[in-house]
Amino acid sequence: MNETIEGILSHYSVREFTDQALTKAEIDLLVKSAQAASTSSFVQAYSIIGVSDMALRESLSEIAGNQPYIIKTGQFFVFVADLSRHHKIGEARGVATDSLSSMERLLVATIDATLAAQNMAIAAESMGLGICYIGGIRNDLAKVAELLRIPDYATPLFGLTVGHPTANSAPKPRLSSELVYHENQYQEKTMDDFIQYDNTIRDYYSARTGGNRVEGWTDQIERGLKHSTRLDLKSFLESKKLGKK
Amino acid sequence: MNETIEGILSHYSVREFTDQALTKAEIDLLVKSAQAASTSSFVQAYSIIGVSDMALRESLSEIAGNQPYIIKTGQFFVFVADLSRHHKIGEARGVATDSLSSMERLLVATIDATLAAQNMAIAAESMGLGICYIGGIRNDLAKVAELLRIPDYATPLFGLTVGHPTANSAPKPRLSSELVYHENQYQEKTMDDFIQYDNTIRDYYSARTGGNRVEGWTDQIERGLKHSTRLDLKSFLESKKLGKK
Repeated sequence: MNETIEGILSHYSVREFTDQALTKAEIDLLVKSAQAASTSSFVQAYSIIGVSDMALRESLSEIAGNQPYIIKTGQFFVFVADLSRHHKIGEARGVATDSLSSMERLLVATIDATLAAQNMAIAAESMGLGICYIGGIRNDLAKVAELLRIPDYATPLFGLTVGHPTANSAPKPRLSSELVYHENQYQEKTMDDFIQYDNTIRDYYSARTGGNRVEGWTDQIERGLKHSTRLDLKSFLESKKLGKK
Repeated sequence: MNETIEGILSHYSVREFTDQALTKAEIDLLVKSAQAASTSSFVQAYSIIGVSDMALRESLSEIAGNQPYIIKTGQFFVFVADLSRHHKIGEARGVATDSLSSMERLLVATIDATLAAQNMAIAAESMGLGICYIGGIRNDLAKVAELLRIPDYATPLFGLTVGHPTANSAPKPRLSSELVYHENQYQEKTMDDFIQYDNTIRDYYSARTGGNRVEGWTDQIERGLKHSTRLDLKSFLESKKLGKK
């Protein structure tokens, strides 16, 4: 197994960092790594906002549910699905741009932004830095878009906090590959197929919390269904002229 | 610069492979690498279909616009945004599952699937394999879903072809980082900001085609706007109970 795959398989999310800021050279290398990812038909339909301003970080942290690792970190990045450059080009050339509001284009921009983000995450970890994705900014995307001055035809998707970790941890066990990987055609699973994994996850949480948290994966998913949030996302995206048709 | 970042920065898409199939050990390692990626609130909302069946590959290639590198390759993977496991858990526990049809959940599953895919892509390249993402399967997702027996609450997103390349190539120049990376707040660009990059891309295509293709990036984007496709994606997703609200 090579160094790159070893790094990939050692991933865990980091939620406590020193306050050491990333250097400009580190940020440049991370952005360059992000940009090297594949992009659908070369559209490069994303932008990255690096948030170093502490007042902005505090506002974003509040939106995400008061996560301190958005403030105390090396750098906080926001990944943006961005078709606004394409809109500008269409306008300048007198070409119809209404297709930018299609679901296809929203997915293309979301996929482009995510490929870039994961490149950055892997690059950061290979440099000895820790990372955590922050979906919490979707608690109030309208506010995030206002704070970061995101134009129409673009939307923030998630944050990525990158910094110097204060401690080490270990990867969390994933679903067994038989539950995720299918040969040639999708094979539907039954609840029984999750029993073993539920036990694994129950043991994992129990060991990490001294027995305080005893919850299987299916329990966690059930809890998520009971407390579903961010149901205003569709109307926000439509206000940004995205995914409308 | 370490080996992992060197690999990331050397990426280019490969569109011609030998017919040497990936081994089971290689596929296992690629799937394990994919699964090691971050996942939103640990929902693991994706599946991967490995298509080795030649008749299926031929059908998928036809859908994608007759791309031979879907057929002649080491393995062809289809990445699926997959909330069907969550739906099954909700049903078994008697919990409402209508939130799975929200735009938030569609984005979460799309982001999860894409993070996993990019892990696989980087792992594959580190093993000396070549990769190419295949958005072309979105030309007819209903047909792809039928061929691969994708259930409700799930949708194919894109393919990833992985194999032994027949030749080497070199990375394609990206937008300059100033056009993609913003400090603290989004800075809108003007058409003038793209002039230099247009020249770079024009030279790149010209050099690779012996002067036959002379097109800047903005020209390419303009062409894409004129020939927008896949405008039926929203209704397909809704038929799979995804992104409806």
